[in-house]
Amino acid sequence: MTPPIVIPFRPVDPKKRLKAIMSQEEREGFARAMLSDVIETVIDAGCTPVLLTTQEIANIDARVRVIVLNLGLNEALDAFRKEQDGPFGIVMADLALCNTKSLMQLAHTSAAFGIVPGTGGGTNAIYIKDGSAFKAQYYGFSFLKHLTWAKEQGYSIEIIDSFRLSTDIDEPDDLVEVLIHTERNTAAYLNQIGFVLCAEEGRVHVKRI
Amino acid sequence: MTPPIVIPFRPVDPKKRLKAIMSQEEREGFARAMLSDVIETVIDAGCTPVLLTTQEIANIDARVRVIVLNLGLNEALDAFRKEQDGPFGIVMADLALCNTKSLMQLAHTSAAFGIVPGTGGGTNAIYIKDGSAFKAQYYGFSFLKHLTWAKEQGYSIEIIDSFRLSTDIDEPDDLVEVLIHTERNTAAYLNQIGFVLCAEEGRVHVKRI
Repeated sequence: MTPPIVIPFRPVDPKKRLKAIMSQEEREGFARAMLSDVIETVIDAGCTPVLLTTQEIANIDARVRVIVLNLGLNEALDAFRKEQDGPFGIVMADLALCNTKSLMQLAHTSAAFGIVPGTGGGTNAIYIKDGSAFKAQYYGFSFLKHLTWAKEQGYSIEIIDSFRLSTDIDEPDDLVEVLIHTERNTAAYLNQIGFVLCAEEGRVHVKRI
Repeated sequence: MTPPIVIPFRPVDPKKRLKAIMSQEEREGFARAMLSDVIETVIDAGCTPVLLTTQEIANIDARVRVIVLNLGLNEALDAFRKEQDGPFGIVMADLALCNTKSLMQLAHTSAAFGIVPGTGGGTNAIYIKDGSAFKAQYYGFSFLKHLTWAKEQGYSIEIIDSFRLSTDIDEPDDLVEVLIHTERNTAAYLNQIGFVLCAEEGRVHVKRI
């Protein structure tokens, strides 16, 4: 059976590292576009999406279970896991490049603990067989902290090697990855607000037209 | 049979985007450390490494075939492929995170053309069955250019999804990935010249001690 996949989400004033190139309204629209791609992928992978949001949001797919908890990420996940008695996954809402294949690799791991690093030391996705035991330690060295914790528990561990799942979209240059590697809601949203790819001195960036 | 793997290399004044944090001598030592990790991985994957270098370098593993061609990357690869009548791979010398599993996925693809994107639109690795036909188009939008070219040739294509192969080490923050995800020559070299991980405001960087 496929596990539920928790997607933590903050709908208001998200993606602050894009402030220099997007208004708050645009950042909120962009975060929603990424969320919709992640939700669709979770459903396509045969899993149940659980949206763990800091506040109610409109127009969410009826197949999504919504939990509103106005808490920090670690605190919200800690409150969630206490109610679980089976496995679950956690997938960040900004994995705009995620696809069914990479997500199924996580959801169908034979290990007791699956983890996908994010660039810069973060944790982009987790699978935990013994859900109620999970201890969320996001921010900073979270990949190493989660990995150390899983080793201490004696879990079998799979570190999933996926560019698509390891790419979280935080910085202006990360938009390059969206425009090159996807054609879904997130890329459509970027096109709609005028972002295009450009090459300068052999390197690729985005610009606004 | 496993294909030869070409590793293009520029030994003098490499990795210019690390100038702010490393001397030229250090950048040269760092590039050599990454090269040695890539060569070892290619050998462990059962493939023959072919070092395509802009000038002679000392102390190269005897199992490596060395070709000296003082040309630009695209021109050197073009000269190389004209001599080939079988498949070969191309792996960038700065893929410090590469491991046997990810490299074997490339070398054993059943497609006529395998490609690994780099972050920022680049191409980190290629496998081409019909080696003599290859047209190198590195720099700028090289991933999209190589992909478009392969489609135009009518090749079957596999885009390999690997964080380890998609991570090339160019910028100071990329050193974080080396120190978190490897314990080989490259990480040892960084430790030796004093780089360590540090977390600031929930994000991970490197600093020099």
